[in-house]
Amino acid sequence: MSTSKPRHYILTVSCPDAVGLVAAVSGLIATWNGWLTEVANHGDPVTGRFFMRNEIEASSLDFGIEEFRTRFAALAERHQMEFKVRDSSVLPRVMILVSKLDHCLVDLLHRWRTGELAFDLRGVISNHDDLRSFVEWHHVPYHLIPVPAEAREGAFARIGEVLDADPVDLVILARYMQILPPDLCRRYEGRIINIHHSFLPSFAGGRPYQQAYDRGVKLIGATSHFVTADLDQGPIIEQDVVRVDHADSVDDMIRLGRDVEKTVLARAVRYFLEDRVIIHENKTVVFS
Amino acid sequence: MSTSKPRHYILTVSCPDAVGLVAAVSGLIATWNGWLTEVANHGDPVTGRFFMRNEIEASSLDFGIEEFRTRFAALAERHQMEFKVRDSSVLPRVMILVSKLDHCLVDLLHRWRTGELAFDLRGVISNHDDLRSFVEWHHVPYHLIPVPAEAREGAFARIGEVLDADPVDLVILARYMQILPPDLCRRYEGRIINIHHSFLPSFAGGRPYQQAYDRGVKLIGATSHFVTADLDQGPIIEQDVVRVDHADSVDDMIRLGRDVEKTVLARAVRYFLEDRVIIHENKTVVFS
Amino acid sequence: MSTSKPRHYILTVSCPDAVGLVAAVSGLIATWNGWLTEVANHGDPVTGRFFMRNEIEASSLDFGIEEFRTRFAALAERHQMEFKVRDSSVLPRVMILVSKLDHCLVDLLHRWRTGELAFDLRGVISNHDDLRSFVEWHHVPYHLIPVPAEAREGAFARIGEVLDADPVDLVILARYMQILPPDLCRRYEGRIINIHHSFLPSFAGGRPYQQAYDRGVKLIGATSHFVTADLDQGPIIEQDVVRVDHADSVDDMIRLGRDVEKTVLARAVRYFLEDRVIIHENKTVVFS
Amino acid sequence: MSTSKPRHYILTVSCPDAVGLVAAVSGLIATWNGWLTEVANHGDPVTGRFFMRNEIEASSLDFGIEEFRTRFAALAERHQMEFKVRDSSVLPRVMILVSKLDHCLVDLLHRWRTGELAFDLRGVISNHDDLRSFVEWHHVPYHLIPVPAEAREGAFARIGEVLDADPVDLVILARYMQILPPDLCRRYEGRIINIHHSFLPSFAGGRPYQQAYDRGVKLIGATSHFVTADLDQGPIIEQDVVRVDHADSVDDMIRLGRDVEKTVLARAVRYFLEDRVIIHENKTVVFS
Repeated sequence: MSTSKPRHYILTVSCPDAVGLVAAVSGLIATWNGWLTEVANHGDPVTGRFFMRNEIEASSLDFGIEEFRTRFAALAERHQMEFKVRDSSVLPRVMILVSKLDHCLVDLLHRWRTGELAFDLRGVISNHDDLRSFVEWHHVPYHLIPVPAEAREGAFARIGEVLDADPVDLVILARYMQILPPDLCRRYEGRIINIHHSFLPSFAGGRPYQQAYDRGVKLIGATSHFVTADLDQGPIIEQDVVRVDHADSVDDMIRLGRDVEKTVLARAVRYFLEDRVIIHENKTVVFS
Repeated sequence: MSTSKPRHYILTVSCPDAVGLVAAVSGLIATWNGWLTEVANHGDPVTGRFFMRNEIEASSLDFGIEEFRTRFAALAERHQMEFKVRDSSVLPRVMILVSKLDHCLVDLLHRWRTGELAFDLRGVISNHDDLRSFVEWHHVPYHLIPVPAEAREGAFARIGEVLDADPVDLVILARYMQILPPDLCRRYEGRIINIHHSFLPSFAGGRPYQQAYDRGVKLIGATSHFVTADLDQGPIIEQDVVRVDHADSVDDMIRLGRDVEKTVLARAVRYFLEDRVIIHENKTVVFS
Repeated sequence: MSTSKPRHYILTVSCPDAVGLVAAVSGLIATWNGWLTEVANHGDPVTGRFFMRNEIEASSLDFGIEEFRTRFAALAERHQMEFKVRDSSVLPRVMILVSKLDHCLVDLLHRWRTGELAFDLRGVISNHDDLRSFVEWHHVPYHLIPVPAEAREGAFARIGEVLDADPVDLVILARYMQILPPDLCRRYEGRIINIHHSFLPSFAGGRPYQQAYDRGVKLIGATSHFVTADLDQGPIIEQDVVRVDHADSVDDMIRLGRDVEKTVLARAVRYFLEDRVIIHENKTVVFS
Repeated sequence: MSTSKPRHYILTVSCPDAVGLVAAVSGLIATWNGWLTEVANHGDPVTGRFFMRNEIEASSLDFGIEEFRTRFAALAERHQMEFKVRDSSVLPRVMILVSKLDHCLVDLLHRWRTGELAFDLRGVISNHDDLRSFVEWHHVPYHLIPVPAEAREGAFARIGEVLDADPVDLVILARYMQILPPDLCRRYEGRIINIHHSFLPSFAGGRPYQQAYDRGVKLIGATSHFVTADLDQGPIIEQDVVRVDHADSVDDMIRLGRDVEKTVLARAVRYFLEDRVIIHENKTVVFS
């Protein structure tokens, strides 16, 4: 995939598979003289579902995104397509949630600040005040919302209000050490990405590095996934691993794991921001 | 990519990039009610070249491959397309060349015998007789063609005759320790795959593991590439590496390298057999 | 680690950690003018256990292995050491168990035949006759011992007899699709290595690739471990993974997994053959 | 290797190989009741050189580091040992040189600030002022020393003065886009670590990602090495790679490469800081 491209539209499609879908979509775009700079698709023989992602150079079309949606709607209806079009110049709005561990946050902020990841960062929410200064150096709003054990409900209501006041396309849990309540998970279904510090489904739940140490595995990993109401069970977007051996303590695993966590999370966020991820049931199609 | 698929046609296309090429190709196939089970394409912004690979389920078409070619020709001409259609049930014909080191040969024979790699193995040519018994156990013809330093020309003429007598689509140099003469390279341009035991362009030429040892690199690798008249300079198809450290001797590197060599060669051969590789100038597009 | 070394003794030690253990062991060897060509050790701060592996060039000692054991016994007793000395020229005796899938067997036979893995292959036991011809081409005895569902007990008694008649140091389950009875597991504790086709502890039990497909993981793996009476729960020796994506079917995973399985198994076997693995409780120290 | 260890001494040794060296070193330490928490060694059969690294828990000795050196000197002399002892609580002093690209700097500053990498950061030198604010947020001195083409000599003299005024144990070139003059390289021999953005020896010199793109390699990499007067030819400490394909532009390679560069540099710096690297001729022994 290419960075620093000219402005383009990203069209993603998910529908029942059928003969002629690639032709139908690309054919319609061709009638508009649309310049397809990237096309990927996948017909799933098990689910009978078809997925497609198209990048069309904006300057090749003589109309805008609303008109695009209107013109595409008839085709979409004919094939029962769920579709989405986005203008690459309209950046997805993002909120990052974090606790005290900052390696993922620092990594994301760097990629955001340098333009490597293109998003509109609306703010950072944390249950601690530790990272305020670093975040504010980036001129990014910092929302301290403590989550005391005895008042979790109120805390998450407050988080909900912050999100309502300035709606976002994506919530990133960058090692946010709190479990979101089910209703928040449902409201933001498909829009919350978490990084779990194990190679799921191994070691779901708490203290995964300790679990990995106790089991004596020879590789540890990290998993980026969409958050659902079922803890650590949501659709997986990206995973990776790193080698460990008998001499590595739990602390060593935590250290080695940090590099995997931040890389895996950054990749998943990139896929999301570029509309490369399509969820179907509990799995993802990732046109990486 | 999926194995054990139903019979299908593989259509590969290479042409100058233009608006509407995906639509033109997939549209034509759709008019035939052709079922596209896999589509991939790449428009190269640097060379302005367009590449496409399509898998069409054979049973979805009510005509055969010759008719396919005929029907496709007009579109191809309009867009100056180089194209190729192959019926997946017509297996590519392959000759393997080998010397004494047999790890790549053993690996390829196993993948061939179990059907993992689908090709029609016409025979094995070697400059030594060491591997005859193993090859013949597989009921594969074994051609002993020694290549004495003083009579290399005659030897390669003899190899040419064997290839002429039973033409093949692919020649695999599975650690064949002889340099092919330029005219043979040219006659089989784009149809000879070699495995070089280094991560090219590092350590081209002889004794690459010794070179790697002397330089003190921390990873060693292997490269599968098309053979051209320029030694180790042809288009690269696939590469991989494995970690080494100060305690690894040249012998250790040779041992560790074997696993990379056979895997990298097998992947490249698979890509070729499934028409996933398109050569353009000195590079490859690989729709893996 | 170095291949094709001169004849050497391998001394492995496991004992409670204490000051001066490296000095005690290496000091004793030095008093014999023993030439240490490789030394590795590990003091585990959690278990308070010390592990050490030494390679001593045989020609540097003016006595044999029995004398070695005798001379070492006093030191061992003083420190409650479990120790083992082996002469590298006395090859470990190995039996391979296999069903119908032959990729691990073919791989092991090649490494054995070429001397890459140094062991004395006593035979192959299978519950099917499919691989007889290939095994016998290698001049290796083939024992057909069917395991019918209604007569499993007798079958495993028969396997026990074969093993009793010609005792081995290592039993390799090279994709042997039968679960060994607990008593056999116990009799050969620490001497049976299995390859499980998942990244344990994920997807223990049956059909791990199908499980991996259903969960939508982005990497699949293989695990080599010692067999205990608890299915897929024994000490892990080696693991590795390979990337998959949404387009990979279960068949693709099975294909991709084969390469990981055979590599991971071969590495684990090498570690065992070179006495690089020390088991402690349910984990391994691997001096790779 | 373990993080957050108690205070310890690190003893590294390099000398001609001989019988009894492990015993001699560990034996001497044992006479002091020294608690060896980590021991690694390597006898190189090609060069006949012996290398050893020992960690001794400081609290187990009833004397300090000066006394340690004195007591060790006789043994060292007897075996022509080059040796070095360091107290882990005395942090190596480090200067970072950087130009405008900040990914390695940001990464190093984070690892330093969180204590993951233990060093005494004396300052950052840059030929541009761009990164001042970020560095100064960390309360780290920032030295702007422009390097105009017509006055390079003066600029490097100025850098030499800064280094003289506050001597350091390590200079890190964190994507510093200037070639250091030979005399500076020599003065800091074995103490300057550079990150080169290619898998050396491939693509030494300028614009390595463009070179990689032009050659069509399937993996790109990064190399951390000691700087010598020969550009990109110094002893390699660490390397790694990442997969690319035909769809990746040079910009994509630059983006993907950044993650490899910072990880490889951070690993090399860690090895250096923990005295895990011993240089011999143009290669390194790395007790990772």
